[in-house]
Amino acid sequence: MHAIILISCPDQKGITATVTGFIYQHNGNIVHADQHIDEQNDIFFMRVEWALGHFDIEKEKIADAFKPLAEQFSMRWELYFLDQPVRAAIFVSRPLHCLYDLLYRHQYGHLACEIALIISNHSDAQPIAQQFGVRFVKIPKTGENKVSQEENELLILKQAKIDLIILARYHQILTRNFVEQYPNKIINVHHSFLPAFAGQNPYAQAYEKGVKIIGATSHYVIEELDAGPIIEQSTARISHRDSIEDLRRKGEDLEKAALHRAVRWHLERKILCYNNKTVIFD
Amino acid sequence: MHAIILISCPDQKGITATVTGFIYQHNGNIVHADQHIDEQNDIFFMRVEWALGHFDIEKEKIADAFKPLAEQFSMRWELYFLDQPVRAAIFVSRPLHCLYDLLYRHQYGHLACEIALIISNHSDAQPIAQQFGVRFVKIPKTGENKVSQEENELLILKQAKIDLIILARYHQILTRNFVEQYPNKIINVHHSFLPAFAGQNPYAQAYEKGVKIIGATSHYVIEELDAGPIIEQSTARISHRDSIEDLRRKGEDLEKAALHRAVRWHLERKILCYNNKTVIFD
Amino acid sequence: MHAIILISCPDQKGITATVTGFIYQHNGNIVHADQHIDEQNDIFFMRVEWALGHFDIEKEKIADAFKPLAEQFSMRWELYFLDQPVRAAIFVSRPLHCLYDLLYRHQYGHLACEIALIISNHSDAQPIAQQFGVRFVKIPKTGENKVSQEENELLILKQAKIDLIILARYHQILTRNFVEQYPNKIINVHHSFLPAFAGQNPYAQAYEKGVKIIGATSHYVIEELDAGPIIEQSTARISHRDSIEDLRRKGEDLEKAALHRAVRWHLERKILCYNNKTVIFD
Amino acid sequence: MHAIILISCPDQKGITATVTGFIYQHNGNIVHADQHIDEQNDIFFMRVEWALGHFDIEKEKIADAFKPLAEQFSMRWELYFLDQPVRAAIFVSRPLHCLYDLLYRHQYGHLACEIALIISNHSDAQPIAQQFGVRFVKIPKTGENKVSQEENELLILKQAKIDLIILARYHQILTRNFVEQYPNKIINVHHSFLPAFAGQNPYAQAYEKGVKIIGATSHYVIEELDAGPIIEQSTARISHRDSIEDLRRKGEDLEKAALHRAVRWHLERKILCYNNKTVIFD
Repeated sequence: MHAIILISCPDQKGITATVTGFIYQHNGNIVHADQHIDEQNDIFFMRVEWALGHFDIEKEKIADAFKPLAEQFSMRWELYFLDQPVRAAIFVSRPLHCLYDLLYRHQYGHLACEIALIISNHSDAQPIAQQFGVRFVKIPKTGENKVSQEENELLILKQAKIDLIILARYHQILTRNFVEQYPNKIINVHHSFLPAFAGQNPYAQAYEKGVKIIGATSHYVIEELDAGPIIEQSTARISHRDSIEDLRRKGEDLEKAALHRAVRWHLERKILCYNNKTVIFD
Repeated sequence: MHAIILISCPDQKGITATVTGFIYQHNGNIVHADQHIDEQNDIFFMRVEWALGHFDIEKEKIADAFKPLAEQFSMRWELYFLDQPVRAAIFVSRPLHCLYDLLYRHQYGHLACEIALIISNHSDAQPIAQQFGVRFVKIPKTGENKVSQEENELLILKQAKIDLIILARYHQILTRNFVEQYPNKIINVHHSFLPAFAGQNPYAQAYEKGVKIIGATSHYVIEELDAGPIIEQSTARISHRDSIEDLRRKGEDLEKAALHRAVRWHLERKILCYNNKTVIFD
Repeated sequence: MHAIILISCPDQKGITATVTGFIYQHNGNIVHADQHIDEQNDIFFMRVEWALGHFDIEKEKIADAFKPLAEQFSMRWELYFLDQPVRAAIFVSRPLHCLYDLLYRHQYGHLACEIALIISNHSDAQPIAQQFGVRFVKIPKTGENKVSQEENELLILKQAKIDLIILARYHQILTRNFVEQYPNKIINVHHSFLPAFAGQNPYAQAYEKGVKIIGATSHYVIEELDAGPIIEQSTARISHRDSIEDLRRKGEDLEKAALHRAVRWHLERKILCYNNKTVIFD
Repeated sequence: MHAIILISCPDQKGITATVTGFIYQHNGNIVHADQHIDEQNDIFFMRVEWALGHFDIEKEKIADAFKPLAEQFSMRWELYFLDQPVRAAIFVSRPLHCLYDLLYRHQYGHLACEIALIISNHSDAQPIAQQFGVRFVKIPKTGENKVSQEENELLILKQAKIDLIILARYHQILTRNFVEQYPNKIINVHHSFLPAFAGQNPYAQAYEKGVKIIGATSHYVIEELDAGPIIEQSTARISHRDSIEDLRRKGEDLEKAALHRAVRWHLERKILCYNNKTVIFD
């Protein structure tokens, strides 16, 4: 079983030596270690993954043992254990290609999480949920019932112990209250190459503008629409021959690519956020 | 020797048959024919290139002979002959990689034009101009002398019979007066994936935003900055490891790619503009 | 309803004018026309698609009406009507991602055919076939029963009036007899960037070789293994960090991309084969 | 000033901690550290770069101080100092686009080496060498004088203290004797997506085969032709419309991309070779 620690702190001498030394002294076997320095801002980032097989600190006590070291370097840090699979909920409106794609990849073992829940404002996704054996909850929203419906959603999410929300083409804007309860735990896919064509109908915007390349972007959700830390982007060439409908069709593959990679990296604890940007230890 | 006709008109029956029939009846040999229909707006586009070897209308009289046919279908049309090489001027500030790239490709026969002139607001490009045997004119601009300096430029351009202006990283904004004298005859390269990061310092903007893909865009210049019809775009993946300087370095190759292709297609008369977009008959 | 004609013949004057003239004289409205000349071999290729709405020749008599014209130019030609959906059979062994992808795209209207049949040498695909409501036939093959099992397959294919066979990761080599009955009607996807790594275990070969880019290739099947006319290829970057298992996982998306595009173009009658290569009128 | 150490050894506990601890104890400041484990073969790889500013071991004595540690873990290791610029020689036949590209990038500070020498079997490159102020030596080769001419080359290379040879489209096959004197110090660019189309005329081979994507490959040279460890590959889409000449033209940009990145990574000491493959610490 593996532990992972994600660290960011002011850059200074000896961080790597100290962290890897800590693991070595306690008989841990490092299987991945990656670091990065933002030289503009003098920030140090690190991800270390190690096997706990012969590690001589009990799992529950690792955080306490690490704390003094973290304080010494003024670290922000997160500790994860890969045997505790993330419980994910997928929110979807329509179309359903991203939902399908995630469910298929999960079924084939490419996404190491539990998909505990599908929430939609429509009924379209219900048969798919059934087919993959995932609980489905329909929560339709209008301008008026939005806040109360979100409260229902939040209740359901808590009860289901969800710690990752995936917006797989969910076309309802979440309130600040909702977003703040899941910081860096809501992943959205936007069907454009952000920051171009934020907001509604990005394919129509791209068609109108006459771009020669379209894109899709996955990002963590913050209060401001389509403005959170970008995790992954994908692009494809188009031409004047492509109608808006063609953009939509070709874009589907880009959306699936950008979204599933973001989810995968999140589950593998490879993402660190800072300054509204991401470090991806891939 | 080849002639090329570019056509756009309301979509209707018989355009292709009539145009290709015209060429065939006069003993022309079509070497390329391509058409496109914008189904949203019911506009028909066509590019036909034919060998004039046995064509039984004299070159000078082709336009007159074609006119009735054009009127019948309410065409906007342009007729070109590939034995009249375009005379191009390159405007450059710095850096000089795009200038270099164009000159190199021209020297190796990949750009079928005459590069008659290099204009810059700095002296840096002078030795390169010399090395490639191209006339160099330095025209420095300030906020105050901009209009009068543009008049100097326009005079020089007229005298040199320039019919294509390439802005190969030229960082002076052209006035409306200047732009209007060369409609769809000024090609600019912008160092971002437009419409994202228009304006100044796009690489710094991209770095700040934390995008995972950067781009470059070549487009015809209109009065509004960085807003003309897009001709070509190119993109490359970046990561958190890339500094602004890395973006600049990696972007150079994207800029060269987007610009030289735009110039090449322009010279081959493969571009049709409409609704501030381009049809590229590639 | 649309008709499509695909033409190849020795290059000569007047082909385009004559063909488009024929359609125009009979009151057809061309919606797409594309041509290509292989200048090395002086071969002319053309694809014309026209609306039959007001066409004054009955559908059944178009071929006869066109024949004299075809003979005049020594054409090889094929005539299709888009209201006759192709009946496709999918052959699959495992893994099943390409099968899933095709069924999903078909369900969402992106593949204009009937998927009449799934044939497999395993049972794994049966539940998926059921879920999408497609007939499933298991036909296991051994070295000994291969010929008789292929006869069974051929019988089933005839009865189901199949005119397109899609090998969506089918790992049985088809005999010459089988292949010859479906010339340019069997599309395979090979999980490498052909001609590199033909044959077995291409991802293991790629890993062993240490390539930095992997690929997938869709092609029409001919008797020689993995050597038929290439329709589409897709590639992705990999690094030393990718295990064989990672290549397999990343390659799945390449395979899906290369295969579904090939099927789509085939159904749209956009592919012409010659000299063991393809012209794609995209 | 920075030091870099490249390490490979059997995977075991404590390597990272020990190596980074060594640097920390001697007051070095790590600016980059990257590691990789080949899990199939249980090999550990590491690259560490640190600032020598306050390092308390003299530069000349670092190797000796590190040796016991290297022996403890059975390391193969290389130690570099970035203030000793590599002296490179470029070998070129024709065409000259890769030569031009390298010289341009070097001039603009993107390749941190000295380009001390250009060797060619033709005279074409002489003016370019002159223009960039690089020594040019013409050494024409025939089947008969090959061995003696290589001896001349080797003499010149030794005298010029060359430690990197770049074959920038050099079309003479080097003998085993030559290659063995510069192990992992000769970088070649081959104009195909290796292992496809090794040997002569890869673009003609690609055209003949009808591939839809072309590529270029940079690799270290070993005795066997086009078979050394691959460093970088780049690809581009082509279509049936592209003639062999188009492939050549489009391929030039791929060759430049694959070659300059390989040279850059080599100069930055980011490449480790093993099992005829490369680890690139990018």
